[in-house]
Amino acid sequence: MSLFKQRIMSTPSRRIVIVGGVAAGPSAAARARRVDPNAEIIVFHQDTDMSYGVCEMPAVLSGEIATMERLVFFDAETFRREKGVEVRLGHRVEDIHVARKRIVVRDLATNSETLERYDRLILAVGSRARVDPALPLDVCNLHVLRSLDDGRRLQTAIESFSQPRIVILGAGYIGVEIADALHRRGLTPTLVMSDSLPLPGFDTSVRAHILTLLQAAGCTVVPDATITGVRRDGDRLTGITTTQGHFEVDLVLCALGFEPRGELAERAGIRLGPLGGIQVDQRQMTSSDGIYAAGDCCELLNPITRKTMRSAFASLAQRTGRIAGENAAGGRAELHGVIPVSAISVFGTECAHTGLTEDEARAHGFRTHVARIQSPSRVSIMPGALPLTATLVADERTERILGADIMGGEFAALRINTMSLAIRQQLTVSTFLDSDFLYTPRLSPLTDPFTVCARQVLHSLAAGKASHPITKI
Amino acid sequence: MSLFKQRIMSTPSRRIVIVGGVAAGPSAAARARRVDPNAEIIVFHQDTDMSYGVCEMPAVLSGEIATMERLVFFDAETFRREKGVEVRLGHRVEDIHVARKRIVVRDLATNSETLERYDRLILAVGSRARVDPALPLDVCNLHVLRSLDDGRRLQTAIESFSQPRIVILGAGYIGVEIADALHRRGLTPTLVMSDSLPLPGFDTSVRAHILTLLQAAGCTVVPDATITGVRRDGDRLTGITTTQGHFEVDLVLCALGFEPRGELAERAGIRLGPLGGIQVDQRQMTSSDGIYAAGDCCELLNPITRKTMRSAFASLAQRTGRIAGENAAGGRAELHGVIPVSAISVFGTECAHTGLTEDEARAHGFRTHVARIQSPSRVSIMPGALPLTATLVADERTERILGADIMGGEFAALRINTMSLAIRQQLTVSTFLDSDFLYTPRLSPLTDPFTVCARQVLHSLAAGKASHPITKI
Repeated sequence: MSLFKQRIMSTPSRRIVIVGGVAAGPSAAARARRVDPNAEIIVFHQDTDMSYGVCEMPAVLSGEIATMERLVFFDAETFRREKGVEVRLGHRVEDIHVARKRIVVRDLATNSETLERYDRLILAVGSRARVDPALPLDVCNLHVLRSLDDGRRLQTAIESFSQPRIVILGAGYIGVEIADALHRRGLTPTLVMSDSLPLPGFDTSVRAHILTLLQAAGCTVVPDATITGVRRDGDRLTGITTTQGHFEVDLVLCALGFEPRGELAERAGIRLGPLGGIQVDQRQMTSSDGIYAAGDCCELLNPITRKTMRSAFASLAQRTGRIAGENAAGGRAELHGVIPVSAISVFGTECAHTGLTEDEARAHGFRTHVARIQSPSRVSIMPGALPLTATLVADERTERILGADIMGGEFAALRINTMSLAIRQQLTVSTFLDSDFLYTPRLSPLTDPFTVCARQVLHSLAAGKASHPITKI
Repeated sequence: MSLFKQRIMSTPSRRIVIVGGVAAGPSAAARARRVDPNAEIIVFHQDTDMSYGVCEMPAVLSGEIATMERLVFFDAETFRREKGVEVRLGHRVEDIHVARKRIVVRDLATNSETLERYDRLILAVGSRARVDPALPLDVCNLHVLRSLDDGRRLQTAIESFSQPRIVILGAGYIGVEIADALHRRGLTPTLVMSDSLPLPGFDTSVRAHILTLLQAAGCTVVPDATITGVRRDGDRLTGITTTQGHFEVDLVLCALGFEPRGELAERAGIRLGPLGGIQVDQRQMTSSDGIYAAGDCCELLNPITRKTMRSAFASLAQRTGRIAGENAAGGRAELHGVIPVSAISVFGTECAHTGLTEDEARAHGFRTHVARIQSPSRVSIMPGALPLTATLVADERTERILGADIMGGEFAALRINTMSLAIRQQLTVSTFLDSDFLYTPRLSPLTDPFTVCARQVLHSLAAGKASHPITKI
């Protein structure tokens, strides 16, 4: 620390100010420090926790990790000492004066405002949970799960009941992960969703299977439901009424996705994208020179559709943070879009998806050819072989791979990385079939599941028609 | 069957003769049948077993699979019925008359010879085990492991002792797998090897770790040893003398690798490659028009070195067999070389390798930059996180990835497929860093291990010097 401090105090090369301290912010700060040892770097963060794992919160709720505090990677003092970066917790950035390169910072403890100068500014302000407008916000038992404090409150609430009646609104990534976590501690929540199947963004075959897993675990799944009203008793919700029935509740978790926090940037005249996130270029720079954005708050290019998308993955927050930090510190780094990759491991089953689903591809105007196959995870006579389901989506015109899904027991999900790379490299089904994959009976079937899919799609492309039935090999 | 037979008997379009019935042969036959329903297709195979898994034999020896018979995929009658292909077991092809398109076939049961006509010929004659010339061949307790009969003999021999003193000559893939199999049934063999470490073809870090695993399992590992003599008692070996000491033996397994069976082709004037295997083009066609070769008996192009290599993997036998079968039947298929990929799962540890090792790359004249890192298999605070070791080898001039290794507990090996694809696509370290990999705490660390390697190699390339120390992240 003393080394960093001396350098900074003697000849700071530039003042890099970062707004936000959960994932993208600390990543940007650490990278900026590596690139420019002489910069002065300051992180402003409105909460009292910084640099923690959001994605691991379900494992605390399930009891697999002892406390929410274990999810903290750095406290402010350690980050200052190890990375040479000042962190001001409990400080909210309220405005940006772009022309003067100043920000308005409110110290939430004293409620005092100060103006802070910057040479480079990085916005890593994250996202907020979407809440159904039919829900009242002035109740104590309506939960969301974005921050560590959200996690602590939810954990305390769950533990205050022996068998709480829990309704989860939404059956996306977080809804299903929390259902799994609750199941691990013997609870059976009710999942209320607007869609007909859980896990939007995955292939239909995966979504249908996750539905059966949720039900087999004792969860009640309510599809196609719209909230029409609530019942409350003082500051507590006691019931949720939907188009599919009424549910008595002890606590409600709202897991309806997220919205990028674009307001601070918008107020400063920084351009937002069509999805409400901050618009950035390949260097993570916003429409305002010298101001960068990273993490959930910005929109990222999907190279398959050439359109922007939103993302709330910690891995992308870290990557985009690194890039913003590098560029803000005078280096040069670029993000060449992002091929979507997501994975979930619930109820003993791994599911992973990359690229576009069949539905998404069609919605973007592609004529799709799809193969869905079943394969053993390893040579079927070997002990431990489990069934896998693999899906491959290809474009009829270019014959390129557009998307892939895989589902199965242990070892299933990691196979998606190869498909993500294949999509990134714009491989056609035929070129993909040149690939060389490991074979050993303890770890894989003789023919890789996606190779089987690709052969089937190639056949379907040659026949000029779509092929959809599940083929067992 | 009757359908196929009728067609064949009425108007056979061509007569496709396949020599060899273990892996590449049946694969070629099945593919040829799919491409040309009217061809007459005959497989000649000298043994009495056909179409079986060689790679699964260790799992029979360990007791995990009940019998060697479970490794048989097809018997001749089933293959005939399901694939419409005639199979003549116990028939050895002794000569090829290329000009007249005839082969000389010996029926081993009657010892009679016949001439058989072909329009297209596919050689899938496989490989034989290498045996140290210092060993006598006229003993009953010297074993190799190539055929199902080899496996049965070895199994019977092992089971005839309660605690046999077993010496395994060679510590390559098969030697180490058999040591693991014997360890699973409570036996502790001695491995005698000419090299200083087991598992040639894998990264040094992997090889050193496998040595410690072999020793921890109670195996005696004898490095840098050359056989100088043997002791025998009638038709039994009783001892092996090496430059590193003398070993009393009840049975000896010779696992010194394999040699392609090139003689039949060579006698017919078909060109062999520099490694003694049959030379083939991208369509698996030999130097003789209309004669194809597939599987262990031929040499394959390694696109990284632009030189040929040998391979005894069932997966490649199947792939090359498919290609030979397709082309022999009038279709068009090509193999665009093979990026080597190998994996092994022994003593609870998975190891996988692709491309060139550092040593191989240097031997081929590349100036290498190498990163070796340790990473948790998943977010370290998640239950089940295990250590991974990843190695990346890159070329200084082109900055391309040349090779990769990964080692760890469950989930480790499958990560190699992505690197194999990266090498196939000739990605530079920098382009590889554009890749998008799954992140979820239960299945992966925040940053993919090979991404960590690639960042380190990029740094090393920028610094213009090699970086070798293991970095812990």
